[in-house]
Amino acid sequence: MYIYSPSGAVRDKAAFKRGVARLKALGHDVEVDPDALASSQRFAGDDATRLAAIGRAATSGADVALISRGGYGITRLLPALPYKALAKAAERGTRFVGLSDFTALQCALLARTGATTWAGPALCADFGVEGAPDDIMEACFDDLLCGQGEGAGWRLPKECEGHAPVQVRKAVLWGGNLAVLAGLAGTPYLPDVRGGVLFLEDVNEHPYRIERMLTQLLLAGVLGRQKAILMGQFTGFAATPHDKGFGMRSVVEWLRARVKASVLTHLPFGHVPTKVLLPVGAKVSLVSEGRDALVVWEHAH
Amino acid sequence: MYIYSPSGAVRDKAAFKRGVARLKALGHDVEVDPDALASSQRFAGDDATRLAAIGRAATSGADVALISRGGYGITRLLPALPYKALAKAAERGTRFVGLSDFTALQCALLARTGATTWAGPALCADFGVEGAPDDIMEACFDDLLCGQGEGAGWRLPKECEGHAPVQVRKAVLWGGNLAVLAGLAGTPYLPDVRGGVLFLEDVNEHPYRIERMLTQLLLAGVLGRQKAILMGQFTGFAATPHDKGFGMRSVVEWLRARVKASVLTHLPFGHVPTKVLLPVGAKVSLVSEGRDALVVWEHAH
Repeated sequence: MYIYSPSGAVRDKAAFKRGVARLKALGHDVEVDPDALASSQRFAGDDATRLAAIGRAATSGADVALISRGGYGITRLLPALPYKALAKAAERGTRFVGLSDFTALQCALLARTGATTWAGPALCADFGVEGAPDDIMEACFDDLLCGQGEGAGWRLPKECEGHAPVQVRKAVLWGGNLAVLAGLAGTPYLPDVRGGVLFLEDVNEHPYRIERMLTQLLLAGVLGRQKAILMGQFTGFAATPHDKGFGMRSVVEWLRARVKASVLTHLPFGHVPTKVLLPVGAKVSLVSEGRDALVVWEHAH
Repeated sequence: MYIYSPSGAVRDKAAFKRGVARLKALGHDVEVDPDALASSQRFAGDDATRLAAIGRAATSGADVALISRGGYGITRLLPALPYKALAKAAERGTRFVGLSDFTALQCALLARTGATTWAGPALCADFGVEGAPDDIMEACFDDLLCGQGEGAGWRLPKECEGHAPVQVRKAVLWGGNLAVLAGLAGTPYLPDVRGGVLFLEDVNEHPYRIERMLTQLLLAGVLGRQKAILMGQFTGFAATPHDKGFGMRSVVEWLRARVKASVLTHLPFGHVPTKVLLPVGAKVSLVSEGRDALVVWEHAH
């Protein structure tokens, strides 16, 4: 397993150490990138440093290349990412795992090469927590390493009981952090996925901003081309008196009225401890019946 | 003058009243839209209500149609805006004035019809302040109404003293709120302005988010097509210890290294009291020499 820092500087070194120790205790062979703790302004080293780290992760030959943390820093690297090396590594079996700012790399790599990466945990916030990491997250991560993870299931909210069942086959699963993904609209780094299953999450974004970003994807034609939209965890915002009832529920209602795609909520993915791993760029099936939803992939690297 | 509410609900009714009183005291004939104080969740009425208000502003025949306030609400109306009526009114001499969320209407109208609108004050926050409104803002507003405003000048920061003079002629001036404008990337509502002068401002957005949005415009090819970029006021954010020196100055440096366009800062426009009025969609000349910058327009409605 290769640990590197493509985005924000690691400030919580204790969490970093705990994360590495935890992964070792789980039996993993952990290699830490020499610049994993680099710092330049808010970044984990300047652009050249982070690009080199991404390059080393690509040539590490590791089973998993795991980001130390998200933050901000990949978007500005997009024109210079080592796409061929990353795609080759993904094909050879290195699973690139991360979330949040990492969405930029995942989307760009998918757009440019079609390679599959994994939306999943980060070292510090997930494995480096004080106390035990989330057991569902760890089980999913373990499944990935054993090559046994073939899907992720979750419970839909009660109001979905009466909804028509969803059945989507052989659709490309893609998505990630909404702000990062919407920030790629209009650029060559947003994958042009047709008939896909798009999953989204975000943190510290007020529902009106979530809606504005979804509107961008809607008006850009992106949402209209998807068969399903999976809404993950949207956390860290505070409702204000000005909202007068406007919240995530309003946003989901608004979304459902505007797209043909099935909109399923409560996907356990986002800036929360309990997160599944999801193959970005893999072909999946999605089924829901009553309150049960299940996304299944086949042979995703 | 016609006052209407296309975006967020007016909560500060005292400011609204003060603003109307101030405009009347300045000698203006003020007509208030019947739904100017409507409220539905966080919006100034539901979508149909706000669309109707925009339609009434377009057919009011007023010299100026001024928004009560920004907030959020226009982006989701974009496919349904009365573009023809707005363009016709603009041609007949109604100046649509506003900022922030209003940027969505201004950009979309420019993209769809080429019509000119005005980036400028809003009723509540500018004319409705307790005490006297900003005198520069009022003077610019007055100039607009007298048809005498032909330009806006400002002082550049000290470090620009040695910069090469800027001379741009017959370029389309456009821009507004960065978050709203970047949120149109990839959609048909972002004007395709070539060789333009793009001005930007924002509030409550951390510099890393400003940079991410600028990156979107950069990677979408928008910045590369401009002759000049005018950075207005970026306010309301707080630096964090994590930034370690990363701030708006870093963002401007980064921007200057990536675009051929002249990047001028300190434009007096944004979520601040002292703001000039700027014709969005008009042909302008831009000159700077030493610390003096001046944008001049001709016969903008």
